[in-house]
Amino acid sequence: MDPSRLAEEFEQVLNVGIALSSVHDLEKLLDLILLEARRLTRADAGTLYLVKGNRLVFRVSQCQSLSDRLGEERMRQMYQSFEMPVSPESIAGYSALTRKVLNLGDVKQIPPEASYHYNSSWDQKAGYDTHSMMVVPMLNRENEVVGVLQLINAMSDGRVIPFRMEHQRLASSLASQAAVAIENAELTEDLKQAHLDTIFRLGVAAEYRDKETANHIKRMSHYCALIARGLGWSDEEVETILWSSLMHDVGKLGIPDSILQKPGRLTPEERKIMELHTNIGGSILKGAKAPVLQKSRIVALTHHEKFDGTGYTRGLKGEKIPLEGRITVLADVFDALSSKRVYKEAMAEAEVLRILTEGRGTHFDPAILDVFLGSLEEARRIQGRYSDREEDFDKLRGLGSTEGEEEDSAAT
Amino acid sequence: MDPSRLAEEFEQVLNVGIALSSVHDLEKLLDLILLEARRLTRADAGTLYLVKGNRLVFRVSQCQSLSDRLGEERMRQMYQSFEMPVSPESIAGYSALTRKVLNLGDVKQIPPEASYHYNSSWDQKAGYDTHSMMVVPMLNRENEVVGVLQLINAMSDGRVIPFRMEHQRLASSLASQAAVAIENAELTEDLKQAHLDTIFRLGVAAEYRDKETANHIKRMSHYCALIARGLGWSDEEVETILWSSLMHDVGKLGIPDSILQKPGRLTPEERKIMELHTNIGGSILKGAKAPVLQKSRIVALTHHEKFDGTGYTRGLKGEKIPLEGRITVLADVFDALSSKRVYKEAMAEAEVLRILTEGRGTHFDPAILDVFLGSLEEARRIQGRYSDREEDFDKLRGLGSTEGEEEDSAAT
Repeated sequence: MDPSRLAEEFEQVLNVGIALSSVHDLEKLLDLILLEARRLTRADAGTLYLVKGNRLVFRVSQCQSLSDRLGEERMRQMYQSFEMPVSPESIAGYSALTRKVLNLGDVKQIPPEASYHYNSSWDQKAGYDTHSMMVVPMLNRENEVVGVLQLINAMSDGRVIPFRMEHQRLASSLASQAAVAIENAELTEDLKQAHLDTIFRLGVAAEYRDKETANHIKRMSHYCALIARGLGWSDEEVETILWSSLMHDVGKLGIPDSILQKPGRLTPEERKIMELHTNIGGSILKGAKAPVLQKSRIVALTHHEKFDGTGYTRGLKGEKIPLEGRITVLADVFDALSSKRVYKEAMAEAEVLRILTEGRGTHFDPAILDVFLGSLEEARRIQGRYSDREEDFDKLRGLGSTEGEEEDSAAT
Repeated sequence: MDPSRLAEEFEQVLNVGIALSSVHDLEKLLDLILLEARRLTRADAGTLYLVKGNRLVFRVSQCQSLSDRLGEERMRQMYQSFEMPVSPESIAGYSALTRKVLNLGDVKQIPPEASYHYNSSWDQKAGYDTHSMMVVPMLNRENEVVGVLQLINAMSDGRVIPFRMEHQRLASSLASQAAVAIENAELTEDLKQAHLDTIFRLGVAAEYRDKETANHIKRMSHYCALIARGLGWSDEEVETILWSSLMHDVGKLGIPDSILQKPGRLTPEERKIMELHTNIGGSILKGAKAPVLQKSRIVALTHHEKFDGTGYTRGLKGEKIPLEGRITVLADVFDALSSKRVYKEAMAEAEVLRILTEGRGTHFDPAILDVFLGSLEEARRIQGRYSDREEDFDKLRGLGSTEGEEEDSAAT
């Protein structure tokens, strides 16, 4: 092989590796890995599996010729998630088990003494004709199998040919880079999930002494995300408000029980203290460097402002109220009215909508209210998904005994 | 250049890229980048800068011949962190600004019309003789400069030669991979810091209504880390207990003000409720998937157990108490005795140590107590670093006014 061609191909692999390392979203990453592997090896189709325990979990499938024939949408519908054991009976399982590349010129001519055989059910279902196949294990630096790349039908001038050695080399190089990129994306995902979980628990803790349930903050944060999406925010911005609105009431941690849990109406003085929960929240979140916590602080400070300037803590008016505040105030009020609390029943939806509409331009930003009312269908689904059960209202139940803890505890 | 040699070198660059992607600790990563860059280019010495805003920040320097002569320790002492502007006057600045590789055969023969010049102060200070130099900008996928690699004195048979073109190519490939690895390590760091920050705020919030200060949980978590290190735990395990102990009292969020803030002695019934804070903490943290939160739950549940089985919540005894519990109980008691609270002065150290020693084998695990007493010097430093000032005892001050918030708030 001539050096300049070799140099060019290596350059490609290097660039693909860099591209993979830059993608932190696992779904997008897996798509890109398969796409680049197919491109480097001129494969018409391919499938990517991840190893979870001793199972191979199907994650992505792509097929150029079928996509051209059926369209992307029909293609997507044809693939269903499935799992299979890491065992020598399947081609992908054999590769995962032996950590070896399998380069099969024609899957219909696998010798009978091989432990694996070709499963033609997919070909039959899709009306596809698989011949050449190359299966490449994705090994991490500890030589553990992270997943398996299955490349199908190498193309040359419109005909299917066996995969060439140079393609096997390229695919193997790509697979090593893919393995580390997958592990990094999973690490990033884990770190983000752990953080989200902590934020959620902080939010729940803040509602602990109050009459709210954990589902209130879940519903409310999803309403906020719904509105943000309706406003055309990016995925990342939507995710940020989903997270940051979880902590809107964190300042309630600083409000005395005597006020927070008072059964009747608050006196004007008590109300003043209660309203301090916005500032206390701001102070708990003060000085945070993480963008999501900075947004949380804005939410905590401004989720009781009203569009006409009659809200608290600062009496900001209209556009002076940060968008996050204008979104959360609506989500919060909607949830307060439409859900059951210990001291009241849920209000009928028509009545809730009447009240919201009455607040158009006074309590709520008209534009945001319109977006929300336009997504009512989805809001109802959120409501259904995170509806409160009776036991959610009895939060401290069982805490007095140590029995419940002992059963499941990791601490014993 | 012959193909097999080329293939081998590319293989090297690929493997280096994979190695870099697997390192998430920024310090270790920068060290490894410079080491591999020097190895690939046969450079005797090198320096790595990161770009922060419009400054170049010195991060790592390595020099084989000086290390051999002076020893690693002396070497490290010679380097001091410094910054310089990204400007055409310095060699590294020029490379960062133009995004170009500078390959200088001899820095002492830079033509006078060049905007940059060689700063020989380091050579003079270290008794080193810099001749050839190659400066490679580390560009990310958006073509932004993440940092600059400065490689010094290419070696061949013990003599300094100019850097060869093939080395320039290799170093450039490495630099692209390094750039994305650096950005990924920074992302991981940011995610971890954001999570740690949230955990800390959850811990602080839990102490909000209590008589504790934020410094109490900082000191306590550092005492825990100190003990864990003394027990020979890995860096990761030490970090985990540092984080997870921050939330030891998170369950106080569920204790009524009337008990938590009662000025005098608690009645036996009140004490029973107060002691529930361990179980409430366990329930706030229940079902968490993140290892650090799982450990937090263990800490929350067991930080009042005593070694002889007379503690709460479960009256576990000896080794039945998770190590995390045995560590945190000691750290918590030490800090409670040795620091000032609103209702008491700090106790003299001799008296504190007498009480701890009295509890050897009854209150505290003897092995853990011994480790702690052996690290008293470091414990005193922690005490000094996070000592409470008067204002820390007056937590709600200023929350009543909106003035303070408005000044610094990101919400306006």
